[in-house]
Amino acid sequence: MNAIIITIGDEILIGQIMDTNSVFIASVLTENGITVIEKNTVSDNPAEIEEQIPRAMLRAGLVIITGGLGPTSDDRTKSTLCKIFNTMLVENSDVLEDVKGFVARRSGVLNDLNRKQAAVPACATVLRNPIGTAPGLWMEKDGSILIALPGVPFEMEHLMVNEVLPRLKSQFKLPEITKVTVLTTGISEARLAELLSGFEQQLPQGLSLAYLPSPGIIRLRLLYIGLEKDQQQDMVNAQVEKLKGLIPEYIFGFNDDTLQQVVGRLLVRRNETVSAAESCTGGAISSLLTSVAGSSRYYTGSIIAYDNTVKIEQLKVDRALIQQYGAVSKPVAEQMAAGCCKVLGTGWAVATTGIAGPDGGSPEKPVGTVWIAVAHKSGLIQSARFSFGEHRGRNIQRASVAALNMLRTLILQKETDEFYN
Amino acid sequence: MNAIIITIGDEILIGQIMDTNSVFIASVLTENGITVIEKNTVSDNPAEIEEQIPRAMLRAGLVIITGGLGPTSDDRTKSTLCKIFNTMLVENSDVLEDVKGFVARRSGVLNDLNRKQAAVPACATVLRNPIGTAPGLWMEKDGSILIALPGVPFEMEHLMVNEVLPRLKSQFKLPEITKVTVLTTGISEARLAELLSGFEQQLPQGLSLAYLPSPGIIRLRLLYIGLEKDQQQDMVNAQVEKLKGLIPEYIFGFNDDTLQQVVGRLLVRRNETVSAAESCTGGAISSLLTSVAGSSRYYTGSIIAYDNTVKIEQLKVDRALIQQYGAVSKPVAEQMAAGCCKVLGTGWAVATTGIAGPDGGSPEKPVGTVWIAVAHKSGLIQSARFSFGEHRGRNIQRASVAALNMLRTLILQKETDEFYN
Repeated sequence: MNAIIITIGDEILIGQIMDTNSVFIASVLTENGITVIEKNTVSDNPAEIEEQIPRAMLRAGLVIITGGLGPTSDDRTKSTLCKIFNTMLVENSDVLEDVKGFVARRSGVLNDLNRKQAAVPACATVLRNPIGTAPGLWMEKDGSILIALPGVPFEMEHLMVNEVLPRLKSQFKLPEITKVTVLTTGISEARLAELLSGFEQQLPQGLSLAYLPSPGIIRLRLLYIGLEKDQQQDMVNAQVEKLKGLIPEYIFGFNDDTLQQVVGRLLVRRNETVSAAESCTGGAISSLLTSVAGSSRYYTGSIIAYDNTVKIEQLKVDRALIQQYGAVSKPVAEQMAAGCCKVLGTGWAVATTGIAGPDGGSPEKPVGTVWIAVAHKSGLIQSARFSFGEHRGRNIQRASVAALNMLRTLILQKETDEFYN
Repeated sequence: MNAIIITIGDEILIGQIMDTNSVFIASVLTENGITVIEKNTVSDNPAEIEEQIPRAMLRAGLVIITGGLGPTSDDRTKSTLCKIFNTMLVENSDVLEDVKGFVARRSGVLNDLNRKQAAVPACATVLRNPIGTAPGLWMEKDGSILIALPGVPFEMEHLMVNEVLPRLKSQFKLPEITKVTVLTTGISEARLAELLSGFEQQLPQGLSLAYLPSPGIIRLRLLYIGLEKDQQQDMVNAQVEKLKGLIPEYIFGFNDDTLQQVVGRLLVRRNETVSAAESCTGGAISSLLTSVAGSSRYYTGSIIAYDNTVKIEQLKVDRALIQQYGAVSKPVAEQMAAGCCKVLGTGWAVATTGIAGPDGGSPEKPVGTVWIAVAHKSGLIQSARFSFGEHRGRNIQRASVAALNMLRTLILQKETDEFYN
């Protein structure tokens, strides 16, 4: 089954907001064996919508549109749908109930804009939305399905998972797909491609490998699409095992794992805790660690020591050391990490000190220079200097990833050592 | 002039990565008066590229494609371009120099994959890429321009700004556009739409208003497109003034301002400093504050007090208070903020304590309950309870925005009071 995703909205077309909705819809469809052949973004001009939707319905059996169902007056999608499907808007009592309930829970008063949400094309099956005011719509014409979803991301996601997917599964026999994503860090894409060129060439037919880079992390996606599920998983798993043999030191996880989840699981397994002493990363490592639900089991807290006085007073870094080596230096990074373990009473601590930029660089320590240290309460300490480049935001991201990965590697290494015994 | 943006890559079509490139390209084109009539994402299957590019070049005078120029073997775009333009790949000596220089600066060794980057279609004008290995390509056919840019976001951005835009400006007379974005926080979209319904109706022709929501922040975009620049700015400014009169308490900035920049500017103006005591936001407020270049002028540091022991030992919160009222309470939030001012020696401090979820909620304090406090070293303190909802990530985002906004409001309020005198 082929699908086209259309996101509607001038704000996407002019580049003012990111179209995250189509990403979510595409991944849900793909994981269920529906091939997304095209993604489109079009203006919320009714004439454009009126042209693009029928065109898409001719090309694909399933067309999913998002956006244009909200309460504000830049949304004209519903009336355009009526034109395309030759029908009219009618107030739907179920939807009106949902809207009333939603507004009441937020302690608001139902206004005319809220009430407009309850008007839907007469021929549409309503996909009720318990977490917002715009319902989804399911409409069929000439053998094609058109599904309209609200543009608010979490409402769209809810409807996609709880309404759209179950209906698609019950209506169609979908092809099978097997996907494993191998997550790597600490290596560039070109170097990885070089290491894996032989691996790529030996891949069995039907199995594809893709490189998906983001700052500090490259994901390797192995994908198999076919009609029979039976042997797919075994085939893909065999290739994953080969990757593990080829690049063991760079693999930190699989599929939807995040580096912070992997670190968290390792800490839980050892019943240990972690804290962070962040200078140049400014809270980004702590944010990553606490983005994981349940992180309070192993994450205690952090000292964000942006100013040197905080390094000295809170983390007990030697003032003389800062004067001698500068704040961005190996001894300062190591004292920050060791001090953090002690002050916050954690088993492990990670520390960063560096020059995020755009200013503050020097010939010896250019922008992007970052010292990262990891300490354990036992006295173990490790540190390394990194050069991340010139972009402030990416420096912070890459330093955070490198710090978490240094912690991960050290925890793993100490598991095989006699460290804990 | 009309443009179509095509991003190439199965990884986008299957929803594995976000297409941020088309967002950037769309905003650059829009701000220069080029109308993006369609955004497309297509498979990196050569047959699909071969079909979509000519189709787009028939519809629009400018087609910009990204992706598919990288060194790894899932990229087949360049050879497909040769087919479309009836030409062949030749090694370009300038590009080879650039690639060699780039690899050398990264202390790497030129490999075959790097070298392949220097092969370009013979008829293409090369857009040299000093910060990566894939060059951009500018090709013309039958009155339409095709521009191919690498998929790595910062390389694409560099080429777009430094190569593509100057060439477009010198080759075409582009229409004029005036855009002002008014940034609001602390109000829902439906409520805002209600307050502004009269305002929308009186907008002069040619001027449009759009609502662009994100967690905690709604941006109002006023857009005017026309051939004459002269009076556009005055017309848009007059409407901005009306908005300032209608919703003054919700507006925190304009255009590319961020809340953290606005707060930073206020602190610099008063020569004051800020710190943060974060529990449920886990470093997100500190991350926002330090995302601003130069934030070390006013941001000192933070205590991320996830565990109660950190609240007690580092922030000097009364243990008895936590036992009596719970960690998520007004007195604890206020002591965290006041303690943070004292411990880190800053003029202002913001504090958060709440239940980010998904677990930890109770009937009296459901998931999403957050207490935010702002303290000044003078003893001034303000706090409020918020209910943000059930989603962990959005709770953290919305709490961070609300905390920064409470700080902003209080600084502004104290400027008009006799507070500083």
